[in-house]
Amino acid sequence: MSEKKKVVLAYSGGLDTSVVLKWLQVEKNLDVIAICGNVGQDDEDLDFIKQKALDMGAIAADAVDMREEYADKYLTKALAANGLYENKYPLLSALSRPLLSKYMVDVAHKHGADYIAHGCTGKGNDQVRFETSIKALDPKIEILAPVREWDLLTRDDEMDWAVAHGVPVPTTKKKPYSVDDNLWGRAIECGVLEDPWNEPPEDIWTISNSPENAPDVPEYVEITFKEGVPTAVNGEEMNFLSVINKMNAIAGNHGVGRLDMIEDRMIGVKSRECYETPAATALIIAHKALETMCLERETLFTKLNLEHQWAHEVYFGKWFSPLKQALDAFMAETQRFVTGVVKIKFYKGNATVVGMKSDVSLYDFCLASYGAEDTFDRSAAKGFIDLTSLPISVWAGVQGAKVE
Amino acid sequence: MSEKKKVVLAYSGGLDTSVVLKWLQVEKNLDVIAICGNVGQDDEDLDFIKQKALDMGAIAADAVDMREEYADKYLTKALAANGLYENKYPLLSALSRPLLSKYMVDVAHKHGADYIAHGCTGKGNDQVRFETSIKALDPKIEILAPVREWDLLTRDDEMDWAVAHGVPVPTTKKKPYSVDDNLWGRAIECGVLEDPWNEPPEDIWTISNSPENAPDVPEYVEITFKEGVPTAVNGEEMNFLSVINKMNAIAGNHGVGRLDMIEDRMIGVKSRECYETPAATALIIAHKALETMCLERETLFTKLNLEHQWAHEVYFGKWFSPLKQALDAFMAETQRFVTGVVKIKFYKGNATVVGMKSDVSLYDFCLASYGAEDTFDRSAAKGFIDLTSLPISVWAGVQGAKVE
Amino acid sequence: MSEKKKVVLAYSGGLDTSVVLKWLQVEKNLDVIAICGNVGQDDEDLDFIKQKALDMGAIAADAVDMREEYADKYLTKALAANGLYENKYPLLSALSRPLLSKYMVDVAHKHGADYIAHGCTGKGNDQVRFETSIKALDPKIEILAPVREWDLLTRDDEMDWAVAHGVPVPTTKKKPYSVDDNLWGRAIECGVLEDPWNEPPEDIWTISNSPENAPDVPEYVEITFKEGVPTAVNGEEMNFLSVINKMNAIAGNHGVGRLDMIEDRMIGVKSRECYETPAATALIIAHKALETMCLERETLFTKLNLEHQWAHEVYFGKWFSPLKQALDAFMAETQRFVTGVVKIKFYKGNATVVGMKSDVSLYDFCLASYGAEDTFDRSAAKGFIDLTSLPISVWAGVQGAKVE
Amino acid sequence: MSEKKKVVLAYSGGLDTSVVLKWLQVEKNLDVIAICGNVGQDDEDLDFIKQKALDMGAIAADAVDMREEYADKYLTKALAANGLYENKYPLLSALSRPLLSKYMVDVAHKHGADYIAHGCTGKGNDQVRFETSIKALDPKIEILAPVREWDLLTRDDEMDWAVAHGVPVPTTKKKPYSVDDNLWGRAIECGVLEDPWNEPPEDIWTISNSPENAPDVPEYVEITFKEGVPTAVNGEEMNFLSVINKMNAIAGNHGVGRLDMIEDRMIGVKSRECYETPAATALIIAHKALETMCLERETLFTKLNLEHQWAHEVYFGKWFSPLKQALDAFMAETQRFVTGVVKIKFYKGNATVVGMKSDVSLYDFCLASYGAEDTFDRSAAKGFIDLTSLPISVWAGVQGAKVE
Repeated sequence: MSEKKKVVLAYSGGLDTSVVLKWLQVEKNLDVIAICGNVGQDDEDLDFIKQKALDMGAIAADAVDMREEYADKYLTKALAANGLYENKYPLLSALSRPLLSKYMVDVAHKHGADYIAHGCTGKGNDQVRFETSIKALDPKIEILAPVREWDLLTRDDEMDWAVAHGVPVPTTKKKPYSVDDNLWGRAIECGVLEDPWNEPPEDIWTISNSPENAPDVPEYVEITFKEGVPTAVNGEEMNFLSVINKMNAIAGNHGVGRLDMIEDRMIGVKSRECYETPAATALIIAHKALETMCLERETLFTKLNLEHQWAHEVYFGKWFSPLKQALDAFMAETQRFVTGVVKIKFYKGNATVVGMKSDVSLYDFCLASYGAEDTFDRSAAKGFIDLTSLPISVWAGVQGAKVE
Repeated sequence: MSEKKKVVLAYSGGLDTSVVLKWLQVEKNLDVIAICGNVGQDDEDLDFIKQKALDMGAIAADAVDMREEYADKYLTKALAANGLYENKYPLLSALSRPLLSKYMVDVAHKHGADYIAHGCTGKGNDQVRFETSIKALDPKIEILAPVREWDLLTRDDEMDWAVAHGVPVPTTKKKPYSVDDNLWGRAIECGVLEDPWNEPPEDIWTISNSPENAPDVPEYVEITFKEGVPTAVNGEEMNFLSVINKMNAIAGNHGVGRLDMIEDRMIGVKSRECYETPAATALIIAHKALETMCLERETLFTKLNLEHQWAHEVYFGKWFSPLKQALDAFMAETQRFVTGVVKIKFYKGNATVVGMKSDVSLYDFCLASYGAEDTFDRSAAKGFIDLTSLPISVWAGVQGAKVE
Repeated sequence: MSEKKKVVLAYSGGLDTSVVLKWLQVEKNLDVIAICGNVGQDDEDLDFIKQKALDMGAIAADAVDMREEYADKYLTKALAANGLYENKYPLLSALSRPLLSKYMVDVAHKHGADYIAHGCTGKGNDQVRFETSIKALDPKIEILAPVREWDLLTRDDEMDWAVAHGVPVPTTKKKPYSVDDNLWGRAIECGVLEDPWNEPPEDIWTISNSPENAPDVPEYVEITFKEGVPTAVNGEEMNFLSVINKMNAIAGNHGVGRLDMIEDRMIGVKSRECYETPAATALIIAHKALETMCLERETLFTKLNLEHQWAHEVYFGKWFSPLKQALDAFMAETQRFVTGVVKIKFYKGNATVVGMKSDVSLYDFCLASYGAEDTFDRSAAKGFIDLTSLPISVWAGVQGAKVE
Repeated sequence: MSEKKKVVLAYSGGLDTSVVLKWLQVEKNLDVIAICGNVGQDDEDLDFIKQKALDMGAIAADAVDMREEYADKYLTKALAANGLYENKYPLLSALSRPLLSKYMVDVAHKHGADYIAHGCTGKGNDQVRFETSIKALDPKIEILAPVREWDLLTRDDEMDWAVAHGVPVPTTKKKPYSVDDNLWGRAIECGVLEDPWNEPPEDIWTISNSPENAPDVPEYVEITFKEGVPTAVNGEEMNFLSVINKMNAIAGNHGVGRLDMIEDRMIGVKSRECYETPAATALIIAHKALETMCLERETLFTKLNLEHQWAHEVYFGKWFSPLKQALDAFMAETQRFVTGVVKIKFYKGNATVVGMKSDVSLYDFCLASYGAEDTFDRSAAKGFIDLTSLPISVWAGVQGAKVE
């Protein structure tokens, strides 16, 4: 029976977390419980990773398919909020970290572990997200961040340490980019991307065609939403996870969802990031469009600002926070009305909404039309204009505008 | 010598304002002074329009080339604010109305006119913009809106009245769409567009190729900004008006800038609008990108929300208002830092930023890099995370998150 | 059996609505159903008013005690949002109008009435609030606003018309002020108050002492909150309606809650308003204070801005609107945590929070203390400061501050 | 001639900074240049403090009267923004830190110093403000925070070290509270205040009477503002510094400006703070009131939210930041209109605005009045209401409100 204290580790199977897994045993004298979560990342063999953890001395290893939970409890909220950090980045890594954290805390409770460890570096966002989420779920658990603590500063140091301690090392050359991926997309950074004047090379993209190589024929896709959640593609009903997978394939095929931006990291540094988010991009475009049809205008105006704030909180790791949860309540109240069908045309990098319909549409043909059906009362306009402009008119009479 | 009172009319040469021009004489017994402004609209023959006004009895007619003033005093501010109503529409009509209003008020003062008239209908946005702008510039001038007042409810009524009063009527069939255009783009509405399920037909677009018909070869364009204002294209220095014209040609050729949306009009109605804004779209994309490089992050966060508000004020006709002018002061302060070059790739509807550089870039390679040049102090991360997450940690210890 | 169409009228018993009650019969040939609602206004004899309506020809009259519903469904939400228009006015009239509207719509449905009428003037806020609420509850009901329509422009005209049509007229002189009151306070306007340089005369105030005449001895009162709602005063449990009544008495006695402000009316005019809101002022002060103890800081920051927006929506008559309801959802989510006791000292116009305690307080003595109990980790500070200031530091190195 | 490196120290003359002054010589082998700034704190003998620094080995000491600069360059901006953190605290310490930092950086440049040191603890706000300001002004200067670094954890440790190193120690007992003060008020914390259930004891207040002990007779004071800045009291013109001193005396005499709150510190901890801010409180009340008369309503709405953000930035030490400077530009643009006279009644803790007048008032008697002078066009109301409520009406017809 083990007398050692226990640590739960988010384990990916890669070199960094493999070294961490061993280092926690060697340097901290801890029993390691490894967690591998499937959130939809590429060619993941969870059983292999699990076994690898056990082979390196983990006392337990858990491989969990989190994809449905990720789609249903996390990505629905992201879509409700049209979650885009700095109005652009769909938050893919920021969305998976709280879910992984929740699993780690649950496992820590189950195993009576005092520690949770992660393999994040000291200058990224994910350390903040993991740690903030874990503290929100159980502030008593102590967090270990070996990569921030150890002195294995270069990859060579790490390789040497790995070899010396029996950690399997990769036989292929390190990839030039750092990648994180899940259902909601892929993030790519480092390498030549670190010079913002460089165009991203084609080899960083793996789940989308370039617009140039995308099909020469447009494809029309109809997405059905019920209360804010996609429920069918081209009339075929399916759960949200399946919608995402299908849209990743379709939109990716047409070169949609490649993003390239300078982004402000939490730790205060500007960084150049590339993202490949076919489904997320297409679904947010469709959802936003449907909202313009189904949401009353003041709601739209306010929601737009609160969307930015929602994205900011989530980017900053505050998924499990009272503010984020109150913003979710706001969003949920609005989504009751977002039901209908959006028709998107995909063509060489473009995802263009070309049609919308809804049984609860607020677009009123008879009010909008300039044709014979027009029911709008023109006589109301003068009074409306006179009173909405009255404060400016009074101001102008007394104080006056600066006109250049 | 005339004993009549005078009215200044914004005259476009079309049927509506021609009937208005005559109607003001016949029904209101006013002397009409016609103003025709060139803000970059399509195939405008200002001299012809001016003569037409005089032929129909205007006592004076003024044709003014407002394009440079429009670019330098109005569109620079729109670009500084990345002005997009509902995060999408570049406000083209909303931007030209205050300038036209300013000219009308100036002419009214010069001629001692008591009235200003416009030919806008009672359910559009432009009536609000004209009237609010005019009141802001001179609240004592009385505004006439004949189209809202008269009983010429159908085009046939209008044609009959025109014929009966010697107003030249068009011999061609009325175009199915209603169009407004200027340097910043074209707005198209009505006809089949009134059913939001219909894809916009190709014939509504006139200044852009479809992505399908756009060139098969990408084009790279470098735009230079100085303190927020574009000053060169591909290294060739030119004034902002020329940049806009050039970018309308380039971006339009590549199918960039076609917008299709349901929009919330001021008068409370949702309407389906299509816009064609090649230069505006490309320049805003470039400008926003450069701002991510040159603006400090808290400034970016706040500016994003104030941009929405700026667009809202301008859409609602409040160009000459104290709030809009205070927001301009905020924006101007930020633009001091927005200097650099943005490289855009145009290809079949896509305008993608693929490179940026700036002498005042806040992107710091040594802080951003994961390579050997890294100067970031990793040891700071723990303290940062501990304190930024402390309020959530305390909350979690006492009150706890809702975890689904 | 009546063949006439029916109208529901909000009837107060005063001259204006009495004339309206008769006018609707005489001029519009309608059957009138009168509604008198008790929302806590001063010395209201509902039975007398009801009989008066019937005596003047109303086919039905309903007198309803709405006070508990007003407290439980409306004022709880106002307190959750610390609802203060322009950061000052507790919205008392704006809160009662939607409730009265709901009753009128319900009664219209019950009686099959096609119309609802109100007795508001054309330049106030209440016309907007009644009409917007009624449209939100049933957009098919037609609204009549006789006072805006008729030509009884002076009080003498109205008196003459009343005498001529058998409407009882007051025998006392008209009061110099216009007053509206309910549980949440009294609003006073007109008369000498219309010159903002005049100090409000003492005779406008009826439910509060002046600070000068208030007791010379302070009174301490403890208010208990459960999830945002007051549930006890000085340890004595009571429903919210009783709390309000008690606090009106206590705070009014000590001269608390007199407000005097220039306010921006919906219809675009600035107006000078005085309010007397002892309970509302004291309860909002207590509630806000408890929130500083129980709400996490980012929640507080965001809530502060959303409170302003909530107040704006409610002031503008949008109680029954999707945005207001989504804001309520946000507020409700935050109120789960607002439980505790607030001790207020009342003295000559001051309501000062002098103590707070809560089982779910986020104030952590050991973190806050500079004494021996201090558990704060000072070593975290440097990293925190270095990273939170990093964007400014980078900016300063490249672009530099303007220092005057 | 000294070979040592130099450090500039903000020196107050108290025990903490005296020990720091010596410690920097002993432990860091630095030459110390002491700065003592007069920002209006209580009974400061700058010459004595300067001499004390030199006596303890400082190679230079500078005593500067910063009061006029503080009033004219810092407090005017605070008043323009009605700067209140969490809508309550007038930011007094947060306003003086950037000014002191600017002096330290200037002195460091003059003397060629590589370091700047401060005596702040590791859990307060001031360390963040000093360090952020210094980095904004010169990111190359290295900052030393001895109190965060050393191991003199208790006052006894500090006293022992002082005695051992010839630092004069106070002969009187340590005051139970920690105080910071300047022209804009006093901050008091610690001691019995650390239990939020305790009422602040009377002995913490030094510049204001209690309401109970304040005069029994009200005092009326007229404050004149020109473009947002107070320029006269009771008609007597004086500079802003003199206005502040005078208002501290008057308002303090009447018990105005005592604040007691739980506040969210930058470093993530809630803390109980008491403030005594007679002039700041009275001037902000007056200024806000005048703004309701002189600022157009949309400007007021937006400014209210930006005021909170301004206060947040300044509280967080970001005086010299691009966002704060852009917010200043917004505020400055609004202040052009804020000119007039405000009459305040002071009485036993109350500062009540009882009259306002302005040559550029937007309050329009003829629009506001319900009397014979009324020029408001009532006929405009129906159109205004119909169109402002149209989005809600359409929503109600299709989707419907939730009515409880």
